[in-house]
Amino acid sequence: MAGPRSRHEHVAAELRARIRRRDYAVGQALPTESALCAEFDVSRGPVRQALATLKNEGLIRVSRGKPAVVRSHEATQRLDTFTPFTEWAERAGRTAGNRTLEVARRRASGAAAEALGLTAEDFVVEVLRVRLLDGEPAMVERSTFIDSVGSLLFEFDTDSGSMTAYLAGRGVHFDSMEHVLDAVAAGADDAANLGIAPGSPLLRERRVSRDQNGVVFECADDRYRPDLVTFSIVNARTSFPDP
Amino acid sequence: MAGPRSRHEHVAAELRARIRRRDYAVGQALPTESALCAEFDVSRGPVRQALATLKNEGLIRVSRGKPAVVRSHEATQRLDTFTPFTEWAERAGRTAGNRTLEVARRRASGAAAEALGLTAEDFVVEVLRVRLLDGEPAMVERSTFIDSVGSLLFEFDTDSGSMTAYLAGRGVHFDSMEHVLDAVAAGADDAANLGIAPGSPLLRERRVSRDQNGVVFECADDRYRPDLVTFSIVNARTSFPDP
Repeated sequence: MAGPRSRHEHVAAELRARIRRRDYAVGQALPTESALCAEFDVSRGPVRQALATLKNEGLIRVSRGKPAVVRSHEATQRLDTFTPFTEWAERAGRTAGNRTLEVARRRASGAAAEALGLTAEDFVVEVLRVRLLDGEPAMVERSTFIDSVGSLLFEFDTDSGSMTAYLAGRGVHFDSMEHVLDAVAAGADDAANLGIAPGSPLLRERRVSRDQNGVVFECADDRYRPDLVTFSIVNARTSFPDP
Repeated sequence: MAGPRSRHEHVAAELRARIRRRDYAVGQALPTESALCAEFDVSRGPVRQALATLKNEGLIRVSRGKPAVVRSHEATQRLDTFTPFTEWAERAGRTAGNRTLEVARRRASGAAAEALGLTAEDFVVEVLRVRLLDGEPAMVERSTFIDSVGSLLFEFDTDSGSMTAYLAGRGVHFDSMEHVLDAVAAGADDAANLGIAPGSPLLRERRVSRDQNGVVFECADDRYRPDLVTFSIVNARTSFPDP
């Protein structure tokens, strides 16, 4: 992740910082490409690459022949690809961090047992982590794995990064996932872990994940601070028939 | 919409009602196909069609050779297609309703002006509606249209149904939409309109819609009661590269 920044990364990081500290309102235009070239003393290539990066992150909207316009102050995760958190953060030039609260092997509780197709006698491995963006608590993650997969995680430092990447290296692939999004009020625990007031609205993503053989091996309940992370999706007409 | 119900619609409606009144827990199995055939005195065809309908609504999960399992008690809108509310409700066997609070032509305010690329001197048409599911307030909809499109709505009974369908009939198509999802606390107005306590978490969908010529003609801020509506999406591996 480290290493010297290329010119386009430098331009993207600076513009991203300005957008995040609200130097521009949503809808406001960024400086023109020419102005950015002059300010950063670079050619058009790096400027355009930086703008493409910010567009991909959902921060700006780009129209041909016009200056880019700020679309959102928050980083947004694209729902149609659902990139794992660590990878998404890195691509967006943010630093992902993890604070593991618990990795526990225990007998399956009601909801997880049902989602995973287990009985209350079966064991599962539950991982509870706070996920950080640039050091700030952004999400509380509750993942429950079937025992054969979850046991692999006792050999993994869950503070170090992506369980998705680790499990892929052990041959367990998140082959398909079903997500349900809603909103919940933060309880006392979530509020304390996220540094927000109890009752604050959180964006919740619940999911069930299947491996390459179609076996459900994980269910999860992830709760995001909406001031730090949103989700986005674009529908084109092919996917949106006229009524 | 009307007309006598076919056999599969009857089976779907009955199973849907049972799921919604929590006769089954999430994760619990429905009766087997054979049991359903016996109970409803129909052949396998209508039973399978009914189960496919409920699966499509996000209420159940179907695996080959096993009874269907309840996935959610709430109806869920699929994010990858983003069917208009009225059409989605009808397909799900629910009754959509609308209570128009305001249709107003006024000068563009800050955020909408920026999203629509207008100045504060330009006019927009703002539509504020409460959208109902089976008579219950489920969502507060705030749509802002550019004047040329919004003016068409003064000839439309906004209590009667889908603006999407009406505008398509007038040659204005929702060709592509960019959505951002997050969560917000209900303010006093939203709480009163939705019949919930102020501060309750709401699932918010903001969007910008373009017509067939790529022109942004609508921006919207829709706030859903998460106990009545959730959003769902399925990712398969093709859209989810390994890290």
